[in-house]
Amino acid sequence: MPEVGPRGGARTSPAPAQVAAAAARVMARCDELARLTAVPGTVERVHLSPEHARANRLVAGWMAEVGMTARQDAAGNLVGRLEAVDPEAPALLLGSHLDTVPDAGRYDGVLGVLVAVEAVRLLRTGGDGDGGGPARSPFPFALEVVAFSDEEGTRFGRALLGSSALAGAWDPRWWDLTDAEGTTLRDAATAFGLDPDRVGEAARRPEELVGYLEAHIEQGPELDRRGRSLAVVTSIASARRFQVVVEGRARHAGTPYDLRHDALLGAGEAALAVERVCRDLHHVVGTVGQLQALPGAVNVVPGEAHLSVDLRGELDHDRDLAWQLISAALDEVAGRRGLRWSADEVHAAPAVACAPLLQDVVRAGIVARLPGREEPDALWSPAGHDAMAVARVTDVGMLFLRNPDGTSHHPDESVARADVAEGLRALVEAVAHLAAEPR
Amino acid sequence: MPEVGPRGGARTSPAPAQVAAAAARVMARCDELARLTAVPGTVERVHLSPEHARANRLVAGWMAEVGMTARQDAAGNLVGRLEAVDPEAPALLLGSHLDTVPDAGRYDGVLGVLVAVEAVRLLRTGGDGDGGGPARSPFPFALEVVAFSDEEGTRFGRALLGSSALAGAWDPRWWDLTDAEGTTLRDAATAFGLDPDRVGEAARRPEELVGYLEAHIEQGPELDRRGRSLAVVTSIASARRFQVVVEGRARHAGTPYDLRHDALLGAGEAALAVERVCRDLHHVVGTVGQLQALPGAVNVVPGEAHLSVDLRGELDHDRDLAWQLISAALDEVAGRRGLRWSADEVHAAPAVACAPLLQDVVRAGIVARLPGREEPDALWSPAGHDAMAVARVTDVGMLFLRNPDGTSHHPDESVARADVAEGLRALVEAVAHLAAEPR
Repeated sequence: MPEVGPRGGARTSPAPAQVAAAAARVMARCDELARLTAVPGTVERVHLSPEHARANRLVAGWMAEVGMTARQDAAGNLVGRLEAVDPEAPALLLGSHLDTVPDAGRYDGVLGVLVAVEAVRLLRTGGDGDGGGPARSPFPFALEVVAFSDEEGTRFGRALLGSSALAGAWDPRWWDLTDAEGTTLRDAATAFGLDPDRVGEAARRPEELVGYLEAHIEQGPELDRRGRSLAVVTSIASARRFQVVVEGRARHAGTPYDLRHDALLGAGEAALAVERVCRDLHHVVGTVGQLQALPGAVNVVPGEAHLSVDLRGELDHDRDLAWQLISAALDEVAGRRGLRWSADEVHAAPAVACAPLLQDVVRAGIVARLPGREEPDALWSPAGHDAMAVARVTDVGMLFLRNPDGTSHHPDESVARADVAEGLRALVEAVAHLAAEPR
Repeated sequence: MPEVGPRGGARTSPAPAQVAAAAARVMARCDELARLTAVPGTVERVHLSPEHARANRLVAGWMAEVGMTARQDAAGNLVGRLEAVDPEAPALLLGSHLDTVPDAGRYDGVLGVLVAVEAVRLLRTGGDGDGGGPARSPFPFALEVVAFSDEEGTRFGRALLGSSALAGAWDPRWWDLTDAEGTTLRDAATAFGLDPDRVGEAARRPEELVGYLEAHIEQGPELDRRGRSLAVVTSIASARRFQVVVEGRARHAGTPYDLRHDALLGAGEAALAVERVCRDLHHVVGTVGQLQALPGAVNVVPGEAHLSVDLRGELDHDRDLAWQLISAALDEVAGRRGLRWSADEVHAAPAVACAPLLQDVVRAGIVARLPGREEPDALWSPAGHDAMAVARVTDVGMLFLRNPDGTSHHPDESVARADVAEGLRALVEAVAHLAAEPR
């Protein structure tokens, strides 16, 4: 694979000092964004909040600094664009999201946006006062950095709002979603300065896009365990979520066992069955994150129990087979204990495969930095990402950065500056490799 | 065993019509008391409430109707007394409690008080306009009916307040207990018209008491299952309660299994261990009535779980052995899953044995009604009762009445009028047998 340089000749990789400075800037800016929070002392920045507006303004300045023109789209996404020589050229999207969960860490989403801005800085031609003229993408495509407005779904309970708008997959019913204060998404968008009637303008057409590349911390400990800094992502989890209700009979705590129909013990067996089934299947993980016993009195045998079941699989088939086996286990438990059970499916999403070409260029980007050019690590992502929604309109690829101990959605979430430098370099190399591919 | 009659000669059992009328009166009065509630449409009558005062006044009238003098003691218990010929004679206490849990049934406690009043009606001599003079106990002991003010502990979280005061086991620290509104027990008692400084006056001395007999619905389905109406109680449960905390590590729901330390799955195994251990041991029942997973998010592996463990055993030894085995099971689970666990013992009460003599007279009371004088049913009570506290000052005995399907602490709680008639007759016979015992 020939190396094609950003200045048209044989490409030279960015100088280590440039990359190190860029990585340091990313780390410092992650800290700076963490201060834009609704809850001092913690990080909480939700969709269409004052913090969201401040984050968009701050990042827009950083986009401008590297020569991009920045605009806020009709869904509150911030989009920076560095034109190619041909202003009609399609764009390669880079990015991630700026919103957070409550009591969040500093890197989930934010890191991918800031790494993208620094990648543009390292890739652009001109704009740096060396007489090369205004900053331009050196490739036959423009470079865009998208900072999505809502990925986590914290405020309105529906994730991926920003990327769904960009993918042209907006559902008008979402306008009636409400936050904890009862404010509708429509009213919040209007107050933010957006026009709900124009949300369609945020949608991109496939022909104006080359693809989407997202860098993200792993949100799991796999790379840390392997002692590796980067991985190419093969696919994003296939997911299903259920709310399960187990019904038995509430009884006095003195009731003998053979007359009990203890819903909590049924739910406990169900939770253990989720683990057993998913462990046996591989490539699928299941989690019971919520469990409630009713009436919930110390001296009453629970008559009802509610539990959540979250399934994530590399493939839809694994995930569906897991649910089938869990259902069979629940049938057996219910039959044995004289319980009834039912499940309400509250979420379902098919697996989203990263495009082979984009997997290849990310792999090539990683390989460029690996000793002996060994095979780079490949992971599927059990967590959801903006790329899932973007895949509806263009090819997607993802790069994972090592997440020490896999701590995610937590103030202790971290990433090493050295890994950020590695990731940034891999992303830059990946974009260059994509430019060199025959189209 | 000679039969000694209430009128001094050979005793004749009360006429069936008298007993039937008394049972009908008990049923109607249970309904009447159920209307004294804080929450219309449900039954809720807690300690020192306006309903408590109204219930005491109503029952005091019924006590007076059968010739008893009624007084409210310094702890809010209502005490009716029918003197023996010798006004210095000790008293046999009969009774139960008038307070309820929220959304209660109509019979728990109330039935025992009303059956006691009717037993006095059937046992007394005189007072019925037949020229026998004022109503008197025909025995060498006075008859008292005690309607305890607080057995359930609903309002202040501490059960058996009324019977503890009567037993002279009042703990002055209880005055600082607060209800859900923050009102202290001291302030509530004062507002009720009681003088907290005089609570000691509610205490009875052992030498002024013959014993205590309590009739109560079973609060379990054992008699119903056996098709029997009555049982003598051998002992009241030995109990221990624990709040168990299981600590693991909160992780993203995409975390692979071998890196998880799922506190909820540990808690689920613990709940199942409680069942397994207690089933294997017999004579002990354990219940996990509360279980909570933290942080309690659908997409987070629980890092912490809290569960309650309620153990009840016929003997202290069984109960303690159960906890020892459950602890060992928790150690094993924690070791295998990389969790920590700890337990806070929040309640402990030794088993209270019913006095052999009082068991004998209750047995004799039941036998008098059994075809062929077969052996009466004997049960230990996994539920707590006023008799537990009263046992600190005098011998106690208990009679259980069939509780259809064992439904207790629930609006569907029931008892058959025919069983009430049987129970009333057995209680009357038991008192007569006690009077005939050499002292």
